[in-house]
Amino acid sequence: MPVRHADSLPTEDVAAGTATKRQVLIGPDEGPNFAMRRFIMEPGGGMPMHTNEVEHEQYVLRGSARVRIGDDMHHVKAGDVVFIPGGVPHSYDADEGGEPFEFLCVVPNRPDQIRLVDR
Amino acid sequence: MPVRHADSLPTEDVAAGTATKRQVLIGPDEGPNFAMRRFIMEPGGGMPMHTNEVEHEQYVLRGSARVRIGDDMHHVKAGDVVFIPGGVPHSYDADEGGEPFEFLCVVPNRPDQIRLVDR
Repeated sequence: MPVRHADSLPTEDVAAGTATKRQVLIGPDEGPNFAMRRFIMEPGGGMPMHTNEVEHEQYVLRGSARVRIGDDMHHVKAGDVVFIPGGVPHSYDADEGGEPFEFLCVVPNRPDQIRLVDR
Repeated sequence: MPVRHADSLPTEDVAAGTATKRQVLIGPDEGPNFAMRRFIMEPGGGMPMHTNEVEHEQYVLRGSARVRIGDDMHHVKAGDVVFIPGGVPHSYDADEGGEPFEFLCVVPNRPDQIRLVDR
């Protein structure tokens, strides 16, 4: 299926997150090198500080959030591009009120493990 | 620079296209495995039938277009996800009127060559 609408694809809860859902838009079974996913965080939702082994290349589709990357806090909104290198602690806190915080997140087709960071 | 707004990044004309511009959002100098680009085609613009050696994972941000992939024509719009395997001929024709056709296109960090397909 070369073309499909993202809204038609299955949604799953992200166990490590709060009010956070994930969709696989193009999975490792289709793309030979990397996978494209869409994350949807309800206002006030998010994910605590954690690391992944793989890098994230992200594009914000709508809404806004505070995103911590290492020691730096960023306020991101639609049209922002975010690069998170593998191994760097990061967190998401979707802004209260307004629309959900939605972003694409592309990752390489490699084994990954999410590790929560104790702060 | 872990966060930047796409609108702040340089834009270049795509030589093989018509009224088509490209921005590198996350380049191969930053992402170790793949690059994220944004294409902007003015209404009526586009790219003729061509092949790339690498696959494309795409997400339509706004506008609409006729996208041919192999022998199949698709009408795509915001929120549509498009996968084009390496080597498969494809073309873009942004719809006349309305807003520009804008999409993300992620490609692996590998040498690529664009070849126009004689129809």
